[in-house]
Amino acid sequence: RYGQADTEDQVGVANGLAYTTVGGDTLQIEVSLSPGKGKLILTGKLGDVMKESAQTAFSYVRSKATELGIEANFHEHHDIHIHVPEGAVPKDGPSAGITMAVALISALTGRPVRRDVGMTGEITLRGRVLPIGGVKEKSLGAHRAGLKTIILPKDNEKDIDDVPKSIREGLTFLTVSTMDEVLDIAIGGSNK
Amino acid sequence: RYGQADTEDQVGVANGLAYTTVGGDTLQIEVSLSPGKGKLILTGKLGDVMKESAQTAFSYVRSKATELGIEANFHEHHDIHIHVPEGAVPKDGPSAGITMAVALISALTGRPVRRDVGMTGEITLRGRVLPIGGVKEKSLGAHRAGLKTIILPKDNEKDIDDVPKSIREGLTFLTVSTMDEVLDIAIGGSNK
Amino acid sequence: RYGQADTEDQVGVANGLAYTTVGGDTLQIEVSLSPGKGKLILTGKLGDVMKESAQTAFSYVRSKATELGIEANFHEHHDIHIHVPEGAVPKDGPSAGITMAVALISALTGRPVRRDVGMTGEITLRGRVLPIGGVKEKSLGAHRAGLKTIILPKDNEKDIDDVPKSIREGLTFLTVSTMDEVLDIAIGGSNK
Amino acid sequence: RYGQADTEDQVGVANGLAYTTVGGDTLQIEVSLSPGKGKLILTGKLGDVMKESAQTAFSYVRSKATELGIEANFHEHHDIHIHVPEGAVPKDGPSAGITMAVALISALTGRPVRRDVGMTGEITLRGRVLPIGGVKEKSLGAHRAGLKTIILPKDNEKDIDDVPKSIREGLTFLTVSTMDEVLDIAIGGSNK
Amino acid sequence: RYGQADTEDQVGVANGLAYTTVGGDTLQIEVSLSPGKGKLILTGKLGDVMKESAQTAFSYVRSKATELGIEANFHEHHDIHIHVPEGAVPKDGPSAGITMAVALISALTGRPVRRDVGMTGEITLRGRVLPIGGVKEKSLGAHRAGLKTIILPKDNEKDIDDVPKSIREGLTFLTVSTMDEVLDIAIGGSNK
Amino acid sequence: RYGQADTEDQVGVANGLAYTTVGGDTLQIEVSLSPGKGKLILTGKLGDVMKESAQTAFSYVRSKATELGIEANFHEHHDIHIHVPEGAVPKDGPSAGITMAVALISALTGRPVRRDVGMTGEITLRGRVLPIGGVKEKSLGAHRAGLKTIILPKDNEKDIDDVPKSIREGLTFLTVSTMDEVLDIAIGGSNK
Ligand SMILES: [Ca+2]
Ligand SMILES: [Ca+2]
Ligand SMILES: [Ca+2]
Ligand SMILES: [Ca+2]
Ligand SMILES: [Ca+2]
Ligand SMILES: [Ca+2]
Ligand SMILES: [Ca+2]
Ligand SMILES: [Ca+2]
Ligand SMILES: [Ca+2]
Ligand SMILES: [Ca+2]
Ligand SMILES: [Ca+2]
Ligand SMILES: [Ca+2]
Repeated sequence: RYGQADTEDQVGVANGLAYTTVGGDTLQIEVSLSPGKGKLILTGKLGDVMKESAQTAFSYVRSKATELGIEANFHEHHDIHIHVPEGAVPKDGPSAGITMAVALISALTGRPVRRDVGMTGEITLRGRVLPIGGVKEKSLGAHRAGLKTIILPKDNEKDIDDVPKSIREGLTFLTVSTMDEVLDIAIGGSNK
Repeated sequence: RYGQADTEDQVGVANGLAYTTVGGDTLQIEVSLSPGKGKLILTGKLGDVMKESAQTAFSYVRSKATELGIEANFHEHHDIHIHVPEGAVPKDGPSAGITMAVALISALTGRPVRRDVGMTGEITLRGRVLPIGGVKEKSLGAHRAGLKTIILPKDNEKDIDDVPKSIREGLTFLTVSTMDEVLDIAIGGSNK
Repeated sequence: RYGQADTEDQVGVANGLAYTTVGGDTLQIEVSLSPGKGKLILTGKLGDVMKESAQTAFSYVRSKATELGIEANFHEHHDIHIHVPEGAVPKDGPSAGITMAVALISALTGRPVRRDVGMTGEITLRGRVLPIGGVKEKSLGAHRAGLKTIILPKDNEKDIDDVPKSIREGLTFLTVSTMDEVLDIAIGGSNK
Repeated sequence: RYGQADTEDQVGVANGLAYTTVGGDTLQIEVSLSPGKGKLILTGKLGDVMKESAQTAFSYVRSKATELGIEANFHEHHDIHIHVPEGAVPKDGPSAGITMAVALISALTGRPVRRDVGMTGEITLRGRVLPIGGVKEKSLGAHRAGLKTIILPKDNEKDIDDVPKSIREGLTFLTVSTMDEVLDIAIGGSNK
Repeated sequence: RYGQADTEDQVGVANGLAYTTVGGDTLQIEVSLSPGKGKLILTGKLGDVMKESAQTAFSYVRSKATELGIEANFHEHHDIHIHVPEGAVPKDGPSAGITMAVALISALTGRPVRRDVGMTGEITLRGRVLPIGGVKEKSLGAHRAGLKTIILPKDNEKDIDDVPKSIREGLTFLTVSTMDEVLDIAIGGSNK
Repeated sequence: RYGQADTEDQVGVANGLAYTTVGGDTLQIEVSLSPGKGKLILTGKLGDVMKESAQTAFSYVRSKATELGIEANFHEHHDIHIHVPEGAVPKDGPSAGITMAVALISALTGRPVRRDVGMTGEITLRGRVLPIGGVKEKSLGAHRAGLKTIILPKDNEKDIDDVPKSIREGLTFLTVSTMDEVLDIAIGGSNK
């Protein structure tokens, strides 16, 4: 059923957490590579802030390519497509930044993303992780989708105690300040 | 008569199902290739969501090219045009995603699409098939156009019993979760 | 006088039929080639649907180039301009599709178009001809301009008896379902 | 004084006739060539119809280059700029079409334009000249600016008798149906 | 203090005169060259008319390059940026045309612009100088900024006697009809 | 905690000062380089004036590359991304101009920026520094974020005495008229 955790770790897909007027939800970020010339294609009815966030995640990955074990010139041979189903639902905001970076790095390194991990956080060009909103609702959505581990920005630590106890006990919360920490958790055997 | 099932299986054409304020209808997705440099041209008064859906279908096909038996560098030598007649009628939504993917794959492999099959479903970049609306109306439209088999997303299975019995008996409903299953049904001799 | 049938068959020009609030009219579609790189230029205050219709006609011609006796790589050496005088009058709709295809094919093959033929019909990417509106008014306009033969979509056959008898007698109506049939009528010695 | 006939025949400049709410006026069309790659630059606060008219004039010239004595590949080595002073005054409509074609051909052949000639007429892609409005007002403006000869579309012949007799006697009216005729009058020694 | 005459003649900078609702002002036009491919970059919250004026000045310079002592192919090796501080203040109109041409020519030839000269006038593609508005207010602004010489279009000669006598006596007014005359005044040792 | 001074001098990051309706704030300008072709990418919900300011800073750096110790052709091998977190907060105005120039130069030379310095000022294409608003509020924001030194435009000197004494005593104010002076302060061992 779409919206439930996958049954296997996959490459080029990561679980984000969304916060809508009707409550929290998960959203999967999909990344695919095709032979091409470095074009970045963004689809899924994304608003301007979310598109800029994708571009920031992409530049982060490009500028750290060597460090991340990615061929430095991958952009000369590939187009990159980031898609966020469901295509008719408008999405916006910077909080999927780290999720898009994880899905990109997975696609470019071939290393799978842990399927039981959900994550939310704004990314900066240097790979810092900035706070986001809706921790309580997003946690409920993650729990409902069967996720086990939630990555949150360090500056959102104070919001964890707002999550109902019953939910909190079924989830592991990990807080981070940098993309390095995100990758250590989300991508097995990361070498960055 | 336009809008009726073709009398022969064809290459680069697939039957989609639409759902308008005046009921269900079929719509044919046409794909043509020309010598070119990989441009994707989209016409037929398509809304933004439908255009993004086409782009997602296109990236799915490009990223799976080898697997699908398509020359990996076809985009360097061809422009791809996806057109949805009738050109003055506005169309939108993600539900033609799998139909556009089928028409693309048919055009690129030269394998014909079964002319008696209609299909509806959102496609994701990985080739997952997500649920859509209007199953009842689309089924009526498919029946009226003389189609025999309907491909639906697995998550729409529960909507089949809303189709009037008389119509349901004249149609075979097949539900799918992935593009692989769609291709097994719609394109004869698919090797993916 | 502009708007009257030409006195000689010409290359790169075809007679379309328009239907405005003040009645039917003819409109000439002009196509010119220049040394270039395959750009398609569209002028004449054309609306979006008409522009997409031109693009569809262009892709049809490109994908059938060899079959039509056109050098497959013409787009690498030429820019194509489609212009519809009179430049200050807004025009829209898909019904000039087959006329634009005929003018394009004439320009690219050097074969003249029959100057006494007017035509109207939506074109699809595969070269099917779909029905249009305003048959009665367009016939009056064609008659007034001195045309002798009218090409109509097969699905508009039923509208011919709405044309006043006196006009109908001065015109030959030919109905078609495919561009092949259009070319057999409009372009002398077509080998399509 | 700007707006008065030049005192010498010039290359790349032609006199158009405009018709504004405050009466007729002349407007000079200037064309310059620079080393470049075939870009067409249009300035002077031109409306969409006037821009399309410029493009049509440009394609006419490109498609007839050899016939006009212009190097066929000039667009590979030059950018073309068409400017209509005065830059803050909005201008629109198709009636400067033949004037822009004349200025272009003059710039590309190096042959000067007769400085005492004013002209007005819509151009088509094939070089036909279509009728325009405001003959009376434009004639007054031309007379005021010191022009001696006016080129008008053949279909505007009937409007000449609306020009006050005193003005008409100071001007020679020449009517034309094709660009060939325009060039014979406006450009000395044209070989078109 | 910004807005005061510079203390040395500089390359790539020229003093324009502006006319705002709160009176006259000077504005400096800055031009810089960078290794590049001929892109023209325009910044400083410029309106459409002012942008077109910049483009016209640029084409004038390109088409006269050899005559002006500028390498004919400079555009193949350089990007050109024209900036008008102060970046948050909207600016428009054609009257900075000659100032932009002077700053461009200075940057491209390396010859400094006289720092005590202010100038205002619309430029045409052929280098003619057309009249502008606000002579009185602009003169006051120039005087306040410490400028000594004002270049005005010939057609504005009649407006000089509207400038208060006390101001007029501190300024030298020079009127011009062509860019050649502007360059003789503004750029030392110009060979135009 | 985001918004506090970094604990180490960094490359490609500089502290700007912002002035919002709810008071002063700091904002970090991040710059990253990736293998590319000279594209300038700007993100962080920047308004048009701020984007033009970034472009002006970029052209300043490109035109002074040699002087600044930067490889003259860096733009042929790199794309440059300037990002201003927090991505959902709209930002505009020219006052981050010098900060963007500093971050760019740091990224391109590899020389770190002093982490205890905050700066605000409009940049011109020649590297002049123009006055800005909100000195008082920006100083409060800088103090709150733990910065020690503030770079201000010379023309803002008069505004320093509006900063409350207690704050003023914890900060060093340095005023400048040119980018050379900014670099001497902000980038250690600058050879500008
Ligand atoms: Ca959902
Ligand atoms: Ca709390
Ligand atoms: Ca239909
Ligand atoms: Ca049900
Ligand atoms: Ca007409
Ligand atoms: Ca009938
Ligand atoms: Ca005038
Ligand atoms: Ca009359
Ligand atoms: Ca000022
Ligand atoms: Ca006066
Ligand atoms: Ca903040
Ligand atoms: Ca003060």
